Amino acid sequence: MDKYGMLCENIMVVFVEPETPGNIGFLARTMKNFGMERLILINPCRLEDEAYYHAMHARSIVDNAEVYPSLKEMLKALNPDFLVGTTGVPGGSYNVERIPLRPSQLSESLNPSASTAILFGREGDGLSNNEIDLCDVVVSIPTSREYPIMNITHAAAIIFYEIFRGREFPCEGLEEASGLEKNLLIDEMDNVLSLVDMPEHKRRVAARVFRNILGRAFITAREAHTLKGVLRRIKNHLKDV
Amino acid sequence: MDKYGMLCENIMVVFVEPETPGNIGFLARTMKNFGMERLILINPCRLEDEAYYHAMHARSIVDNAEVYPSLKEMLKALNPDFLVGTTGVPGGSYNVERIPLRPSQLSESLNPSASTAILFGREGDGLSNNEIDLCDVVVSIPTSREYPIMNITHAAAIIFYEIFRGREFPCEGLEEASGLEKNLLIDEMDNVLSLVDMPEHKRRVAARVFRNILGRAFITAREAHTLKGVLRRIKNHLKDV
Repeated sequence: MDKYGMLCENIMVVFVEPETPGNIGFLARTMKNFGMERLILINPCRLEDEAYYHAMHARSIVDNAEVYPSLKEMLKALNPDFLVGTTGVPGGSYNVERIPLRPSQLSESLNPSASTAILFGREGDGLSNNEIDLCDVVVSIPTSREYPIMNITHAAAIIFYEIFRGREFPCEGLEEASGLEKNLLIDEMDNVLSLVDMPEHKRRVAARVFRNILGRAFITAREAHTLKGVLRRIKNHLKDV
Repeated sequence: MDKYGMLCENIMVVFVEPETPGNIGFLARTMKNFGMERLILINPCRLEDEAYYHAMHARSIVDNAEVYPSLKEMLKALNPDFLVGTTGVPGGSYNVERIPLRPSQLSESLNPSASTAILFGREGDGLSNNEIDLCDVVVSIPTSREYPIMNITHAAAIIFYEIFRGREFPCEGLEEASGLEKNLLIDEMDNVLSLVDMPEHKRRVAARVFRNILGRAFITAREAHTLKGVLRRIKNHLKDV
């Protein structure tokens, strides 16, 4: 199993005292979007239809959620190696002097083979000071000063995205052209430019611009192939002139 | 105005044919979390209470949303410089051969001073092939193969996060200790170790471990100061022994 498979197995997503069933559903869906399955609910509201409706294809995660009456009970029963707290208000809201990690720093500090519990909650008040104190690290999302408080499931989506951002992107055969292919294309463009009547310094600028655009354009191997064919034909025509 | 201020001014968030008022609200809230205000709705469902409820403190964004009957009408009226499409199914669902950008690549390719429209939609079917064809770039979030389709507002949160991820993190006086402060701390630890009776190679390992932990711990300047004080006291006691 690769690193990301291990993370999927070893991460528990813990929702502390959720108040709205819809958020449980959205959290479950977002977990499944990134391949995680293990949801733990601490003293949750009643699971109503909305939880299942918003979960969409992640209903089984809601069905299989483990429920504990308190965070303490959960920690006693499951004893995770690494406890991550999430907060929307870095600094001000609690007394522990601790730099909240950015999601990208959290991602770097996770050990894929350790059991990790990530705490989210509560919708209204966030995690308590005592809960934050228990955590090994606290993570916070850099947001606007004017309105920093995100919906909990949107914050979760960003954190999950960061944890799994290095995973290979399923792209169904569309792959970016390699450096070699791009260079062949640049050579072909240089050939064309050498056959066009223009001052040397303008030719250099044009070659530079072509190179820059290719660099930014994330073109596919097939697109590179097509373009190269076009340039070769242009070159041949120019030679005939 | 800095780069991020310009991005906030120049980005239009376009929701194409939203079907559920709740998603309009969540989208507005997420926009405000990252400092954006300009929401455009294309042929939307009726705005019901849910839209305002989920928007929370971003109601004014919903109130001020500009409504157009079609994407074509919107493009004619506003003529954005750069049009970004979003898709949950890279590759397979449309015929244009195009590498979908990752959110981080989109973030790199945005020009803060250009007017940029980011299209989201529809909840059920996504953007149409024709709509995707109009876009300058298409962005997609790397998700699990088993269940790649995210709720549209969660996908938006991730894209907004990437666009603004370089913005300074408001941290209310908690700043990470500088390299200099960390080095002073390491020196102090070396002093302590030199006074303790242990074999040289173990001393070197201990110093290395201490350095590694400091490197990973994101400690604050104040924490560094406290620790240094403790080490200095230990050193003085050891000298007295």
